[in-house]
Amino acid sequence: MLIVKKFGGSSVADKERIMNVAARCIEDYRDGNQVVVVLSAMGKTTDELIAKAHDINPKASKRELDMLMVTGEQVSVALMAMAMHGMGVPAVSLNAFQVQMKTSSAYGNSKLKGIDSERIMHELEAGKIVIVTGFQGVNRYDDYTTLGRGGSDTTAAALAAALHADKCEIYTDVDGVYTADPRIVPNARKLTEITYDEMLEFASLGAKVLHNRSVELSKRYGVELVVRSSLTREEGTIVKERSDMMEGMIISGVAADKNVAMVSVMRVKDEPGVAFRIFNTLAQKKISVDIILQSIGRDGTKDILFTVAKTDLDETISALEAAKSVIGAKKITGDEHIAKVSIVGTGMETHTDTAARMFEALYNAGINVRMIDTAEIRMTVIIDEEYADRALRVVHDAFNLGNE
Amino acid sequence: MLIVKKFGGSSVADKERIMNVAARCIEDYRDGNQVVVVLSAMGKTTDELIAKAHDINPKASKRELDMLMVTGEQVSVALMAMAMHGMGVPAVSLNAFQVQMKTSSAYGNSKLKGIDSERIMHELEAGKIVIVTGFQGVNRYDDYTTLGRGGSDTTAAALAAALHADKCEIYTDVDGVYTADPRIVPNARKLTEITYDEMLEFASLGAKVLHNRSVELSKRYGVELVVRSSLTREEGTIVKERSDMMEGMIISGVAADKNVAMVSVMRVKDEPGVAFRIFNTLAQKKISVDIILQSIGRDGTKDILFTVAKTDLDETISALEAAKSVIGAKKITGDEHIAKVSIVGTGMETHTDTAARMFEALYNAGINVRMIDTAEIRMTVIIDEEYADRALRVVHDAFNLGNE
Repeated sequence: MLIVKKFGGSSVADKERIMNVAARCIEDYRDGNQVVVVLSAMGKTTDELIAKAHDINPKASKRELDMLMVTGEQVSVALMAMAMHGMGVPAVSLNAFQVQMKTSSAYGNSKLKGIDSERIMHELEAGKIVIVTGFQGVNRYDDYTTLGRGGSDTTAAALAAALHADKCEIYTDVDGVYTADPRIVPNARKLTEITYDEMLEFASLGAKVLHNRSVELSKRYGVELVVRSSLTREEGTIVKERSDMMEGMIISGVAADKNVAMVSVMRVKDEPGVAFRIFNTLAQKKISVDIILQSIGRDGTKDILFTVAKTDLDETISALEAAKSVIGAKKITGDEHIAKVSIVGTGMETHTDTAARMFEALYNAGINVRMIDTAEIRMTVIIDEEYADRALRVVHDAFNLGNE
Repeated sequence: MLIVKKFGGSSVADKERIMNVAARCIEDYRDGNQVVVVLSAMGKTTDELIAKAHDINPKASKRELDMLMVTGEQVSVALMAMAMHGMGVPAVSLNAFQVQMKTSSAYGNSKLKGIDSERIMHELEAGKIVIVTGFQGVNRYDDYTTLGRGGSDTTAAALAAALHADKCEIYTDVDGVYTADPRIVPNARKLTEITYDEMLEFASLGAKVLHNRSVELSKRYGVELVVRSSLTREEGTIVKERSDMMEGMIISGVAADKNVAMVSVMRVKDEPGVAFRIFNTLAQKKISVDIILQSIGRDGTKDILFTVAKTDLDETISALEAAKSVIGAKKITGDEHIAKVSIVGTGMETHTDTAARMFEALYNAGINVRMIDTAEIRMTVIIDEEYADRALRVVHDAFNLGNE
């Protein structure tokens, strides 16, 4: 088998953990597998490098930040190779230049475009474990780029696709994907399997188990992903095209996201182009809008409500205030005391009572729903932030997701 | 003018020094020059990385050590670019991959073979200061290599040659080349000029002002080197083909090297092949031999004396002891209490009394000469280590090298 194994920064934070990861990879190697390891920077290295940069120039250019940050993963892979050598196993470290990890030209948040797998295959065929820097790429100017936070997952998935790997194991500090955050919902259960689509919905809901693009890539190229813990030997959760989970399960999990704020643009003219002007203003500021709700026009005006990340609220309000006359709004307000609660499951496509069951659970708990957004395998409600944890628990129970 | 400026690790050890170097380079840039900056890793970074590696694997492979170490310079150049941006000047950092700094394939102590100057010229023509990682290269396997300690000087000289730079300034923590080490010879004088050949002799004598290969490269391509301090504004010492120094000066300086040991191989057979067997034994262990002296044969035997680095003495002795029967030696002894004192100067070629003047000075000071080695523009004596400093001072005086 050809296995790609990805370990995050906390898994290689110090000598002991590096040795632990090395030993774990060597087990697979000694079992006769070809092993490719993808690593992030050690522990808090990336944050420390960014702090160093900001100390020298608070507005450091993204190009130079990438040039700086990529050193972090390179340190990890070199040390890992040394650790494996010390254990008597041939290994070689490679960075983004050496595997020609080509990306789009944008710095700081680049998209992977392709990998030249030749060097890696050559090293694998020479009997070596190949250790590749995650998170980083090279653009068409031959400059380093980075893939954004969590980008090492994407590196791993892309390598698994390019190398036609049999599986891609993503090691994290959790031991799999849960039906809900176990810190909030104590009887949450670890899923043995989940579909790509469900995982994508979870990822976009702020469940930081897997980087979104890594799941997209895996889906596109049919890479079987396994999410598991680097600290335990537990099996983890398999992410694949179709899940063989028990028929009875309508949804796979519940997630809450508190990094949400609601913006109300009140009494804009009820005419074409208004929504465009609002969201174009935000697009120019690179602010992402999530859920949008538009009231039915009355007296020639309507209200537009939408959500943004809590961290973007101030900028959103000031951008809209500056464009108030162009938009023609009477009043613009922001509310940061809200949260998003979502249910995700491929079973929703065939079960028509899912929404009703969710609303009933929330109603019974006395939780008011302020906005609703539905997608094929996801349903999201916006509620007051203070009820977020309770909502998570009652919805989790309503769908019988917990352990017995 | 196109100026290459190289700053060592201590010159970029912290934020303040990085800002200082940035400001200094920007002065040249604002005067209308094209500026290429070569940097080493910050302060003790390289040592720290090596310590980290040895903690994980005391016998870390050179390939992986290079992969690890090159991150040091990359951090320096990225931070420097950010510092310059903060001062309002366009700048770009580049590493060995980006400038295709091609080297021989050996790791740890590689030789520069060529540079693709296209990217650098492109960035210079776009009006940027170009900041390049020193010390590192890429070999034909597309692996990182390093040029050995002091290799950043070589990077700077090679870039100056490839870019046809008008000058190459090497900034160090001394303000130039002195007639002798000022810590030992208080009235030592800074030279305004010195020839490549003299500088090469000084470098091979352990005067750590410039990396030897950087001088060789500069000589070959006619790059005018300037050695100056990053801490002061003093002029420094110019290294070039012919020095215009006053005619009266026979020698340019005196140097002592205490990292020397003498090995005596006593009463070997006086027949062809003996010396070969001795030095071949050492060559196989990669031990460099410096001065060799052979006694005149008597009773069919002779003695062979030679010097090695003090740090190589133990290995030398044990290698020779192991080969004792092959060599046919009666006795092998080592003496580590010796030192090398040398005078260097192109004037020696035309002045016949140089040797006499040196011996007279040593004789008057009661210092016994144990070995002598002469070259075109250098003369070296081996003396007891305890007299090394005194020898330096009396020889320095004998040639009137000091300040009045």
